[in-house]
Amino acid sequence: METPYRLHYAPDNASLIIRLALEEMGLPYETVLVNRATREQDSAAYRALNPNGLIPVLETPQGPIFETAAILLWLADAHGQLAPAPDSADRAAFLKWLFFTSNTLHADLRILFYPELYIAAEAAGTLRAGICPRLRRHLSLLDAEARARPGWLDPEHPSVLTWYIACLLRWMVLYPAAGDRSWFNLTDTPHLQRILQGLETRPATRAAIAAEGLGATPFTSPAYPNPPEGSAT
Amino acid sequence: METPYRLHYAPDNASLIIRLALEEMGLPYETVLVNRATREQDSAAYRALNPNGLIPVLETPQGPIFETAAILLWLADAHGQLAPAPDSADRAAFLKWLFFTSNTLHADLRILFYPELYIAAEAAGTLRAGICPRLRRHLSLLDAEARARPGWLDPEHPSVLTWYIACLLRWMVLYPAAGDRSWFNLTDTPHLQRILQGLETRPATRAAIAAEGLGATPFTSPAYPNPPEGSAT
Repeated sequence: METPYRLHYAPDNASLIIRLALEEMGLPYETVLVNRATREQDSAAYRALNPNGLIPVLETPQGPIFETAAILLWLADAHGQLAPAPDSADRAAFLKWLFFTSNTLHADLRILFYPELYIAAEAAGTLRAGICPRLRRHLSLLDAEARARPGWLDPEHPSVLTWYIACLLRWMVLYPAAGDRSWFNLTDTPHLQRILQGLETRPATRAAIAAEGLGATPFTSPAYPNPPEGSAT
Repeated sequence: METPYRLHYAPDNASLIIRLALEEMGLPYETVLVNRATREQDSAAYRALNPNGLIPVLETPQGPIFETAAILLWLADAHGQLAPAPDSADRAAFLKWLFFTSNTLHADLRILFYPELYIAAEAAGTLRAGICPRLRRHLSLLDAEARARPGWLDPEHPSVLTWYIACLLRWMVLYPAAGDRSWFNLTDTPHLQRILQGLETRPATRAAIAAEGLGATPFTSPAYPNPPEGSAT
């Protein structure tokens, strides 16, 4: 690698979160498109990087890292940016909400997007109907946190977790494209909405818009991507 | 607090993982029983510690921490024990499997145990049927990792993640008590089985057995707990 980092990505996939973090940190990186149209994430070559076949993978001098939140935390600690340091008084709060976002908010969102990975196809709609009120509760909790303006959720000094949550909110507006998305309204969580407004003007967002064709307002009023290469689904 | 740490626990709940980590680290701590029989985890006092109403919470000098994996990682880093240090070459591998365990293995296990939190009651059985093959795949991946004897999965020098996985395997044998558990056989994952055998002789395991009434072989041949106080469900 000519740079220390190589991001395996597809447009508007979870790899977007890593791209935003790398941009915000000002770190050079290469990208490698994972062609979802041919299910390249299931290829032997990709599974050698991530046996789960999920996007993203970040290749690093320590080997390939998968799991979005693991990559974020590793990058933050490796570069001393975008997260409270391990010996900081804010570390505990940051970690508990990072894991909540990963194992509850993001995990439930995956069920909403891909219910057929969890249940027989004829019950997929029933599962989606059960997930939506859960997601609303999770967002309400995060909005209550955002109201207190904690350091890890400050759009002027975004942490990796700020970017993570912003992308999840974006995807709630857009996906599943054929499904009912009326359960979600960003105005129901005004403190999170304010954070998205702050993020949208940052150079990292501008870079991601250009690289993945995300449109002018990717967080506060998302549109489907029109990427220069690859496809989101 | 007379000690720096106060663990809010219920017997054989996820708090067991934190207890084992604290014991393995040799750290003093107090415990506070959360009475599940009266749903004390839903009380205002408990929700002030964890707005999700989940067990465990660890009170620390940095405030209350929730999310099992967040507590584990915070403790490991705070005390420089039971996890690769942030600047270690093994950190990336440790983090990716820690997040996988939290947001995939543990998250799916919660669906198996509490499907009614995700879907209408009449479809709970259908959801459970979909989750079991997922869990088997996750365990197969972890067994493949265990075969290579990575540092974070060594029973002679267990990491917080080793203890975490061990408890999840225990619970697959026992819960849901009224459900079909035939999908799980520890012998299907012989490398993980070997790790559980190694953990079972450790002083931390002995201490947890005594504190929570876990029986003589809590990992390799679990029995339902007979705790001195409280109840598991």
